[in-house]
Amino acid sequence: MRHLQVLAKDGRASIRSAEFTESLGVRSAQVRKDLAYFGSFGKPGVGYDIRKLLEQLRQILKLKHVNRTAIVGVGDLGSALIRYPGFSRFSFEIVAAFDNDHEKVGQTRDNILVEDISELKTLKKRGIKLAIMAVPARAAQRVADDLVKAGVVGILNFAPCYLTVPKKIKLISVDIAMYLAYLPYYLPGSMKSKNRNEVL
Amino acid sequence: MRHLQVLAKDGRASIRSAEFTESLGVRSAQVRKDLAYFGSFGKPGVGYDIRKLLEQLRQILKLKHVNRTAIVGVGDLGSALIRYPGFSRFSFEIVAAFDNDHEKVGQTRDNILVEDISELKTLKKRGIKLAIMAVPARAAQRVADDLVKAGVVGILNFAPCYLTVPKKIKLISVDIAMYLAYLPYYLPGSMKSKNRNEVL
Repeated sequence: MRHLQVLAKDGRASIRSAEFTESLGVRSAQVRKDLAYFGSFGKPGVGYDIRKLLEQLRQILKLKHVNRTAIVGVGDLGSALIRYPGFSRFSFEIVAAFDNDHEKVGQTRDNILVEDISELKTLKKRGIKLAIMAVPARAAQRVADDLVKAGVVGILNFAPCYLTVPKKIKLISVDIAMYLAYLPYYLPGSMKSKNRNEVL
Repeated sequence: MRHLQVLAKDGRASIRSAEFTESLGVRSAQVRKDLAYFGSFGKPGVGYDIRKLLEQLRQILKLKHVNRTAIVGVGDLGSALIRYPGFSRFSFEIVAAFDNDHEKVGQTRDNILVEDISELKTLKKRGIKLAIMAVPARAAQRVADDLVKAGVVGILNFAPCYLTVPKKIKLISVDIAMYLAYLPYYLPGSMKSKNRNEVL
């Protein structure tokens, strides 16, 4: 979907499944198989209409409507996320923000009022089912518990720790440090393994 | 490695490859095969000494020594990353920060002096080969070019855009919004596909 968005922005109208191999490193047979899982897409020998395929992917991924999202923790990271311009690409809107710091409560971040953490319980009646957690690791499990109690069913967590949530809740933890940890392996020099260029 | 770190912190001494299946969803045969790629690890029927395996993984991933890292862009996100406590787990230290905003240049972030972006060229003689980019999308390609010129060989990019770098440079782009976009698919209700629980 990301790749198609870039192509659409560049004015491209269609794509053949073979091109996915070059640009994404995914075999074209795999692309066709994955899509076939959800229905019928594209035309043999012609390929996919990019706009149409984007619409279909949005449908599959439930990104057709704006997904209203809360954020917990408005420190540096939380504030950055509220201002992050990339969310709108996928139809997300951050509509509520919470913190336990009395100095921050009542302030705004990009026109979003910061509410006291005790107001998390209002999420249910406001119909907000997704939340982003940008809190310190030591507070993360408690906040996750409160979000689940408040009816949130999808959580994107940035605290560097493991969290336990009920099975029906979808939790994705993003470990920023781990991405950085990928890099040194590729630094030239120091390690002269014959396998060096074969991995990844 | 992340999983082993958690186990080590909990006081666990050893792990059998079969346990990786349960906790990480990776088949034990795959774990053994992946490790065999780099040498001999663990003992048949006994498993792996966790401390020893962690040391070996640090060696393989070149995380044995502290990796000095620069950051470009000290807005909300850059400032949050400088203060992010998770990097030290993987032996990273942010030792330099740059921005093009004259108001920020000369300030500090967590004891790191913010330098003018024109000073990026000093990275080479300072021996800094890794950089994190937390700049707006419109500035990202120019900053990436400058980093490459300054001898940086590994870049972790948070700007929501595609970047072009020479083949010998390792670039990892983290698309924060994409992680959020995974969640709606798992929301209960709306889509009643029979395949709903089979994917991922």
